[in-house]
Amino acid sequence: MAIWLERASADFEQKFAAFLTTKREVSEDVNATVRDIIDDVRNRGDAALAHYSIKFDGIDFSKVSMRVTAEEIDAAVAAVDRSVIEALELAARRIEKHHARQMPKDDIYEDEIGVGLGSRWTAIEAVGLYVPGGTASYPSSVLMNAVPAKVAGVERIVMVVPANGGVINPAVLAAARIAGVEEIYRIGGAQAVAALAYGTETITPVAKIVGPGNAYVAAAKRHVFGTVGIDMIAGPSEVLVIADRDNDPDWLAADLLAQAEHDRGAQSILITDNAELGKAVEAAVERQLKRLSRAETAAASWADFGAIILVEKLTDAIPLANRIAAEHLELAVDDPDALMAHIRNAGAIFVGRHTPEVIGDYVGGSNHVLPTARSARFSSGLSVLDFVKRTSILRLGPEQLRQLAPAAITLARSEGLDAHARSVSIRLNPES
Amino acid sequence: MAIWLERASADFEQKFAAFLTTKREVSEDVNATVRDIIDDVRNRGDAALAHYSIKFDGIDFSKVSMRVTAEEIDAAVAAVDRSVIEALELAARRIEKHHARQMPKDDIYEDEIGVGLGSRWTAIEAVGLYVPGGTASYPSSVLMNAVPAKVAGVERIVMVVPANGGVINPAVLAAARIAGVEEIYRIGGAQAVAALAYGTETITPVAKIVGPGNAYVAAAKRHVFGTVGIDMIAGPSEVLVIADRDNDPDWLAADLLAQAEHDRGAQSILITDNAELGKAVEAAVERQLKRLSRAETAAASWADFGAIILVEKLTDAIPLANRIAAEHLELAVDDPDALMAHIRNAGAIFVGRHTPEVIGDYVGGSNHVLPTARSARFSSGLSVLDFVKRTSILRLGPEQLRQLAPAAITLARSEGLDAHARSVSIRLNPES
Repeated sequence: MAIWLERASADFEQKFAAFLTTKREVSEDVNATVRDIIDDVRNRGDAALAHYSIKFDGIDFSKVSMRVTAEEIDAAVAAVDRSVIEALELAARRIEKHHARQMPKDDIYEDEIGVGLGSRWTAIEAVGLYVPGGTASYPSSVLMNAVPAKVAGVERIVMVVPANGGVINPAVLAAARIAGVEEIYRIGGAQAVAALAYGTETITPVAKIVGPGNAYVAAAKRHVFGTVGIDMIAGPSEVLVIADRDNDPDWLAADLLAQAEHDRGAQSILITDNAELGKAVEAAVERQLKRLSRAETAAASWADFGAIILVEKLTDAIPLANRIAAEHLELAVDDPDALMAHIRNAGAIFVGRHTPEVIGDYVGGSNHVLPTARSARFSSGLSVLDFVKRTSILRLGPEQLRQLAPAAITLARSEGLDAHARSVSIRLNPES
Repeated sequence: MAIWLERASADFEQKFAAFLTTKREVSEDVNATVRDIIDDVRNRGDAALAHYSIKFDGIDFSKVSMRVTAEEIDAAVAAVDRSVIEALELAARRIEKHHARQMPKDDIYEDEIGVGLGSRWTAIEAVGLYVPGGTASYPSSVLMNAVPAKVAGVERIVMVVPANGGVINPAVLAAARIAGVEEIYRIGGAQAVAALAYGTETITPVAKIVGPGNAYVAAAKRHVFGTVGIDMIAGPSEVLVIADRDNDPDWLAADLLAQAEHDRGAQSILITDNAELGKAVEAAVERQLKRLSRAETAAASWADFGAIILVEKLTDAIPLANRIAAEHLELAVDDPDALMAHIRNAGAIFVGRHTPEVIGDYVGGSNHVLPTARSARFSSGLSVLDFVKRTSILRLGPEQLRQLAPAAITLARSEGLDAHARSVSIRLNPES
C-alpha cells in the first residue's frame, strides 16, 4: 500500500518534506574494495582483469578471448528474434534523428571592437560504455548511450559487459551492432571501469565513461572521475503522474507499475485532484500487481515508496512537481500545456493520456537516461552534449590589445598578480 | 630550470608520456574531517557554522552577522579604487555579452508521423558561489561565475566567502555588487559547502554549487555531489605556448611566468620548432623571474613542471598539444588558423602573438574557468550551459501510439519487463 498525502491537511508540508528526503537506496560502502581493484588493474593490467573475471564472472581468458569477436556478434544477431531486431532498428533510427538536432553549432564572431571570440565544439575521441550483465542487461540502454555518441562524432566507442558464466545477452550484442559499436570486451565491475580509465595491454584508455552499473561500478566511476569524464550516477527510477478525473484508472496503474517493476527502490507517485480516481488507481494497482512477472519487486517499491497525493486543484500540483523534480513526469490531464508551462524541474515530460512513459524508454526518440533522485533540479538527461566539448577562442590584434590592456593590467595588479600584468604590458612597451 | 624534451630523440615518447602523467598536486586526504564537518552542519545548522567560523576564521557571529549587509557592500565599493571598479565593470559587460550568445534555444517539433518531441531549457533556481578567502580571493572569478548564472536566468545566487579574521577583500564584494549578487555570507570551508547543500536556519539550500576552493572545499563538493550539482573540481592552472621563431622571447617568457605565478603546481610549457628561440625564452624567464613579486612560486612551478619541447616542424606540435589538452593554449605563430584547425583538445585557444592568455583571465569576455589536468579531452569551460538544464518532451496522440506501440511492447517483453509492455498494450486493448 502506497502512502496517501492530502495537500489540504494541516501536517501536509511536514509529511511531504519527509517524503521528499526519504532515501531509496542502501548505500553500500564499497570504496575500499573498489580502490584495491582499481590499483590492481593499474599495476597489473590484463593479468588483473583475468584474475577478477575468473573470480567474479567465472570466465577464463586463457580459454576465451577478452574481446568479443565479430563472429560472436554475428551469431548473437542471428539468435535474436527478428521482431526484436526490427524494433531495435526502429528505436535506433528514431533516437538518431532526434539526437541529431541536439548537435551544438560553433559560434565564431568578431565583437564591436574587432576582438575575435568563439566557441568551437569537437567530439570526445573515445568513450567507454558500461553495460551491466544479468537481468539489468538492456539492449535499449545500449542504443540510448551509443547512438548519441555516434551522432556526436565519437570515433571510438568501447563497450564493456560482464559475461556472467560466459553468457552475454545476445540482444545487447545485437543492439551494439545496430549502433555501430564494434570494440566489445566481456569484462565488468570496477575492474572494467579501471581498464577503460587507465588502459591495459589489450584495452586503450578512453576519455569518458558512461552507462549504468551496480554499487561497485558507480563507486569506480566516482573514483576515476577527473582522469576521465563520467556521466551522472543514476539512482533508482521514478515516475510522477499528474492526473485529473477523466482517466482510466487501469492506464495510470499500469504506468505506476511499469516504474515500480524496475527496482525495489523505484518510486511511483500519483498526484490527482480527485480522491475517487486516486482510490480507483490504488485498487487497480493491487489488481494488476497479481499478474506481473516481477510482482514482488513492484509490490515492494509501491509499498515502500509509492504515494498518492490529493490536491484541491490541479495547479496545486505544480509546486509539488517542481520540488519532486521527477525523472519522468506524465501529464494525464485535459490541458497538459497549461500545467507544462509552469513545470520547471523534470527530466522528461510525457504529455497527455496517450503518452505512457514506456514509449520514451524505447522508441520515442528522446533519451531514457534521465536525472533521478531530484537531480532534475540541476541536471539534464543524456544528450549529444555529453559527447562533445567546447573550446573557447580569443583573438586580438595590436589595436584590440591596446584597448583592453589597461583594464586587464589594472585587474591583474589589484589581484597581486604582477606577472599577469607584465604579460600584457610587455606587449605595449618593450621597456616595461 | 624547466626540462627540455626533443621530439627527434629516441626516448622522446617515453619521456613525454611520463611528463604527461606527472602529478602536480599533493592530494591531501581530508575526507574524514570533511565528512564530520558536513554531518555537523546538517545536524546543528547555524550553531555548527558559528562554531567553525570561530575556530577557522576567528570570527564570532554573536558579534557580527553571518550575512554581509548592504551597507558593508556599499562601504567596500567605496573603498575600492575607481579604476578597479571601472575595469570590473568593463569585464562584466564583456562577459555578459559573450555569454548571452551561449543561451541554448528550445527545440519543440513534430516528426513525420506526428510525434511531438522537444528539448526545453530552464534555469537552475538557486546557485551557490564559493569564493576563497586570503590571497586567492579574486574579484575576476566572482564575475566569471556569477555573470553566466545571471545570464542563464538563475534567480538566486548565494555567495559564500570566508572572512579570515573578519576581513573580506573589498574588491570581491564590489565584483558581487557589479554582478548583481546580493545574498552573501561570510563563511567558508567544508562548512559553507554543507550549508549551501543542506541549508541551515539562516541559509536556504541551493541546487548547485560552483567556484574554486582548497582541498577541503573540493572534498566537500565531491561529497555533496548528487544532493546538489557541482562544477568541475579545478586543479592547478596550465598554459601551453606553441611558438615559431618570429617571436619576442620576452613576450613568451612573460606568458609562461603569468601561469607559473599562480601556484607551485601550475605548469607552463613551450613547444617550438626553433631551438634558439627556446633558449632565448629560457633565458628571458630567468631574467624576468628576478623582478616578480611572486618569484618564489613562479620559480618553483617553472623548475618542477615547466617544459620546453623542441619539434622539427610546427605541425608536429599538433598531436602533442592534443595529448596535453591544455587549459590554455597560445598559438604564437605566423598562421595560427592552420594549426588551430587540427587542435581538438584545449580549454581555450589564444590566437596569434597579440593575444596573451591574461586577456582571457579578465576582459576578453570568454570564461576563465576552464578544464585543467588534461580534462579538456572530455569537458568544457564554464558557460551558461552550466546554469540551465534541459527537460525533454514527448507527446503522442492515439494514432502515434498505435504506430509505435508494437515495437515498444516487443522490446519491453524482450527485456523481461511485463509491466512496461502492459502500460502500452492496455491503451490499445482494454482487455489486455
